[in-house]
Amino acid sequence: MDKLPEQMTVIGISKPGGPEVLKPETRAVPVPGADEILIKVAAAGVNRPDVAQRSGSYPPPPGASDLPGLEVAGTVVAVGSGATKHKIGDKVMSLTAGGGYAEYCIAPDLQAMTVPDALSITEAGALPETLMTVWHNVFERGGLQAGETLLIHGGSSGIGTMAIQLAKAFGATVIVTVGSQDKADACIKLGADHAINYKTDDFVAVTKEITGGTGVNLILDMVGGEYIEKNYDAAAIDGRIVQIAFLGGPKATVNFAKLMMKRLHHTGSTLRPRSAADKAAMVAAIEAKVMPLIRAGKVKPLMDSSFPLRDAAEAHRRMETSQHIGKIVLTI
Amino acid sequence: MDKLPEQMTVIGISKPGGPEVLKPETRAVPVPGADEILIKVAAAGVNRPDVAQRSGSYPPPPGASDLPGLEVAGTVVAVGSGATKHKIGDKVMSLTAGGGYAEYCIAPDLQAMTVPDALSITEAGALPETLMTVWHNVFERGGLQAGETLLIHGGSSGIGTMAIQLAKAFGATVIVTVGSQDKADACIKLGADHAINYKTDDFVAVTKEITGGTGVNLILDMVGGEYIEKNYDAAAIDGRIVQIAFLGGPKATVNFAKLMMKRLHHTGSTLRPRSAADKAAMVAAIEAKVMPLIRAGKVKPLMDSSFPLRDAAEAHRRMETSQHIGKIVLTI
Repeated sequence: MDKLPEQMTVIGISKPGGPEVLKPETRAVPVPGADEILIKVAAAGVNRPDVAQRSGSYPPPPGASDLPGLEVAGTVVAVGSGATKHKIGDKVMSLTAGGGYAEYCIAPDLQAMTVPDALSITEAGALPETLMTVWHNVFERGGLQAGETLLIHGGSSGIGTMAIQLAKAFGATVIVTVGSQDKADACIKLGADHAINYKTDDFVAVTKEITGGTGVNLILDMVGGEYIEKNYDAAAIDGRIVQIAFLGGPKATVNFAKLMMKRLHHTGSTLRPRSAADKAAMVAAIEAKVMPLIRAGKVKPLMDSSFPLRDAAEAHRRMETSQHIGKIVLTI
Repeated sequence: MDKLPEQMTVIGISKPGGPEVLKPETRAVPVPGADEILIKVAAAGVNRPDVAQRSGSYPPPPGASDLPGLEVAGTVVAVGSGATKHKIGDKVMSLTAGGGYAEYCIAPDLQAMTVPDALSITEAGALPETLMTVWHNVFERGGLQAGETLLIHGGSSGIGTMAIQLAKAFGATVIVTVGSQDKADACIKLGADHAINYKTDDFVAVTKEITGGTGVNLILDMVGGEYIEKNYDAAAIDGRIVQIAFLGGPKATVNFAKLMMKRLHHTGSTLRPRSAADKAAMVAAIEAKVMPLIRAGKVKPLMDSSFPLRDAAEAHRRMETSQHIGKIVLTI
């Protein structure tokens, strides 16, 4: 193989602020440590936590790269000691500990997955963060079973569009909330059974109607705020609510008698602080349970748009409009 | 056996109100239906829901007796068709669908348990509601494991004193909150490892200190209100909080980011609305897992006081002072 360069171009956060603070920088190409691989990045997914990190409200954890970018796809160009899952030349996609907005990026060997033929490398760069978030929160944490009804808030987001496909593939009925008719159409096209426009309809009343008064078994919520008590209202007896973000704010005044009387389970998680072992276990489960669906072309990321790496600011602007449907990716 | 009388004395709720509305009445002795038994009551436990029902805030579910009393112990004097678990003459203790404050009371055959020799009949009358509430919420719902730390709010209540004993018997570390030194002493004597007086100490700070900063794995909460966010603070990563009542009110303003970031599970339940099948399953689990401890004298209800049935109003007054430590029982 070609000798690796010593320097690379990255997109750094010059200071906390708006999209314009994302600026090209030159950094040393990182060297993979034990159990790590170095990926020549072809595509890097853009995620809400990148936006939060850029604006200064979500600092990277200790030891992580200060660069944004939590998922990449590309070619393995170096492997650290003990990294035996992947080898130089492999096409892989992986969660990262940050630093995805760059020409080269480190990933833990066990968190990387082989890119299946059914996916373009750009699609692959849009997959790891979303897939792991949905798999863990909907199936492992939320315990979704075939025949159950799942309500997804933010149905047209990257996470929402992946959750629709996986929930349908595993035999659930899917209801989504969205903010426009375009988004509703996109979700229905992906397989959602019902799309509720939260701007014109009360999702509690509509989900009750759809479920014959029973309520939904599982809710995947990235909104929080005033949705929290409404989620308790929309849930069935023994229902579960999994909180993965708080686009509507984390504070709410809630009547917890509803949680007790309906025997609800309210939980939540974020991916980034999970241990390497936890993430590797999620990847192993996904390789066993979900990759066959992806290889068969039955599940793939819904792509909103891609931007060259140097236009990361534009990509962030698009995400912040919330007009996107599906995933936004940077390409190199 | 002697012929059953046609009439019996009960304690009815003459109208919603204070303890004085509890008045003797004469009612027909009930006839057991299919899968039911009739118990000649020797002891009837007094529980918080009885007080709520008396005051008008907790109406009995449709089809249930309008009389208070959710648990009894006594002798089987009649069996309905299909009831094969117990026979006439058996000493049993059982959850009821209401109507325990009476000389005779119906119970579902599968919800009744044989009174072990280690218990007096008065102790047996104090056991079913508490035992089933603790077993389900701490072990089945809360998933308490040996080596974990359990925080019990209301440690000196009937439920608290049973939870202390069972959690210790199954290898957990137990911390309780209580409102007086007397109650703290009683809990420690029962086996609690730590008792925190909530009137003088901040339970979040003390539990953090006790657990070396980690927090507790499980919280059994009957308080709610401002305890809810404090519970999130006191819980460990992956901690569970089980809500069984709201003596401090069900409404609270909470920062749910704490729930998500710590991957907490907040759930709860009440016993009364559970299906007969659910209750029978709990009883079967208790007979397998807990009865050996009771037969061996390792677990028994902590008795606060007993009152003759006709003095039910006095029993309610004592419960409403919250000065009791352990269970209050009516005897016939």
